Amino acid sequence: MIENRCVVLAQRPQGRPRVSDFKVETRPVPELEDGQLLCKNRFISLDAGFRNWMDEGSGDNVLPAMPLGEPVMGLTLSEVLQSTHADFAKGDILMARFAWEEYTVTNAGDFISPIKDVRYPLNYYLGVLGDTGLSAYFGLTDFGNIQPGDTVLVSAAAGAVGSIAGQIAKIYGARTVGISHGPDKCGRLIRELGYDAAIDRSGADLDQAIAQACPDGIDVYFDNVGGPMLQAVLAHINEEANILLCGSVATYNSTEQVPGPNNLFQLTTKHAHMHGFMTHLNLARYEETRATMAAWITEGRLVIHEHRLQGIDNVGQAFCDLFEGVNFGKTIVEL
Amino acid sequence: MIENRCVVLAQRPQGRPRVSDFKVETRPVPELEDGQLLCKNRFISLDAGFRNWMDEGSGDNVLPAMPLGEPVMGLTLSEVLQSTHADFAKGDILMARFAWEEYTVTNAGDFISPIKDVRYPLNYYLGVLGDTGLSAYFGLTDFGNIQPGDTVLVSAAAGAVGSIAGQIAKIYGARTVGISHGPDKCGRLIRELGYDAAIDRSGADLDQAIAQACPDGIDVYFDNVGGPMLQAVLAHINEEANILLCGSVATYNSTEQVPGPNNLFQLTTKHAHMHGFMTHLNLARYEETRATMAAWITEGRLVIHEHRLQGIDNVGQAFCDLFEGVNFGKTIVEL
Repeated sequence: MIENRCVVLAQRPQGRPRVSDFKVETRPVPELEDGQLLCKNRFISLDAGFRNWMDEGSGDNVLPAMPLGEPVMGLTLSEVLQSTHADFAKGDILMARFAWEEYTVTNAGDFISPIKDVRYPLNYYLGVLGDTGLSAYFGLTDFGNIQPGDTVLVSAAAGAVGSIAGQIAKIYGARTVGISHGPDKCGRLIRELGYDAAIDRSGADLDQAIAQACPDGIDVYFDNVGGPMLQAVLAHINEEANILLCGSVATYNSTEQVPGPNNLFQLTTKHAHMHGFMTHLNLARYEETRATMAAWITEGRLVIHEHRLQGIDNVGQAFCDLFEGVNFGKTIVEL
Repeated sequence: MIENRCVVLAQRPQGRPRVSDFKVETRPVPELEDGQLLCKNRFISLDAGFRNWMDEGSGDNVLPAMPLGEPVMGLTLSEVLQSTHADFAKGDILMARFAWEEYTVTNAGDFISPIKDVRYPLNYYLGVLGDTGLSAYFGLTDFGNIQPGDTVLVSAAAGAVGSIAGQIAKIYGARTVGISHGPDKCGRLIRELGYDAAIDRSGADLDQAIAQACPDGIDVYFDNVGGPMLQAVLAHINEEANILLCGSVATYNSTEQVPGPNNLFQLTTKHAHMHGFMTHLNLARYEETRATMAAWITEGRLVIHEHRLQGIDNVGQAFCDLFEGVNFGKTIVEL
């Protein structure tokens, strides 16, 4: 019998998650029944959005609330070790909504996306060619309506999604402005991710910083953070602006409700639009989009940054890192 | 020399406007210079949105802040009495952004929309076939994506825009739910405007009332009020919902900033959209749209309600009525 080390939700995080909210336990892997898969999870993707479902009663149309004492739900890049399911065979590579554990036994439901033809390094399938990179692509492509010379502002600009969004916006001909935390990361935005300008959100006057970095206003805002930043940005949008609501890291950890922007009426007077989107609904377009983005990587137009940790013992830490601004690029754990 | 009675902004309203914020003054009408028009304002349209520009420093891309002691800006239906302008002749009928006054002398700038062929009663051109009715039409038609059986929720459902929006949504095959104030108006929503259900916003539990009136969730929200209602509605939107931000009467009068919805992330998880729009940008489509809507009126599918007062002395009162929930349908003053 295989021993499976998993990261369980030891206690519900109060505000920002801490390493002690998670605990590694060893559990046996059950024998396969008919129509099941046994998978080895090769990489675990860490995504701030999953913080949403760690609270009591937080279940919604996307996921149920995570149960205490059970392995934490996440995204993995997994390899099929054994299959009694007609659609899968040993050696298949899957992008899956599996838990933070070394092995997963599953009935192969909706949240498994097989990677038919593995052409790229495995880690790419959780990052630039996975849900995070594809979120950047689908958001900007489907709802950005970027015209050459447009100003595209990206929050959490050094994060997994933001680091790709800024580069894609640039490929689409935009002038790109990134928001991050601290002079070091802001410098790296410009030097390593090609942003035309950077805004340090730890600075004193956010409004003035936005005005200065976006002298022609904002045509597209790729929003990974929500919260007060969204309000500050709304004051500077242009007519027909598109605001892409990808993530809301400013609110995931809040123990109280964070008030929304008090200037939403800007959308009316600027006849602008706000779009929510969920990347996994575009599964049918993943392969084609991966080819497009892989070509950009090959041409050197899209560079990849990764914050990689090793081993199941470090998954909790890697998740907490997301909220401490430690990462530059995609956060991933290799098992 | 003609004497012109005008309503000036006597003081800036604090919160909800009061009749004493406005004062009728008599001013001489100047002689026409070259390239000017003298118009008789036949009807004045009262629109809550103009409250926005009565505050100090409230100017934006739509209008400058209204100066104290000067005639209040508004929308009028006006007749050309005299013209030294090549494009206009005596007898022309204009929909215009003129002030609250009996006569207007103007250089004929951007905010005049001549009504080439007057086919309908004049008052229609400020109501159902004017900016308010056309706002309902353009919002729902351009951004509603209404499918038969969809639930369309309308706030300020008895107002100038809402009373038309509910009926158009019905014509488009929706199940319509209106929000208004008090059992009397809610009853009229159903009996006189054809709403399938009504929500009394003065009731105790708004969340429960919405859930009860919209058991299948909300596909389209035509928002005339903004504020806390928007937050309550967001909790009940369906996937791919469209929220049409037409007006924000809940915030126009606020002396402090009204916090925005704390659950905007609903747009992301429901991959839903929020659209701001400004009707006057669609001027080129007005004539064609008027014909469509006039046909609905003729067929009895679109009924018109009007809150009409008489004379320049009652313009201030008519404006204040908008915020007291006195009106049912379009508020208008006949001069």
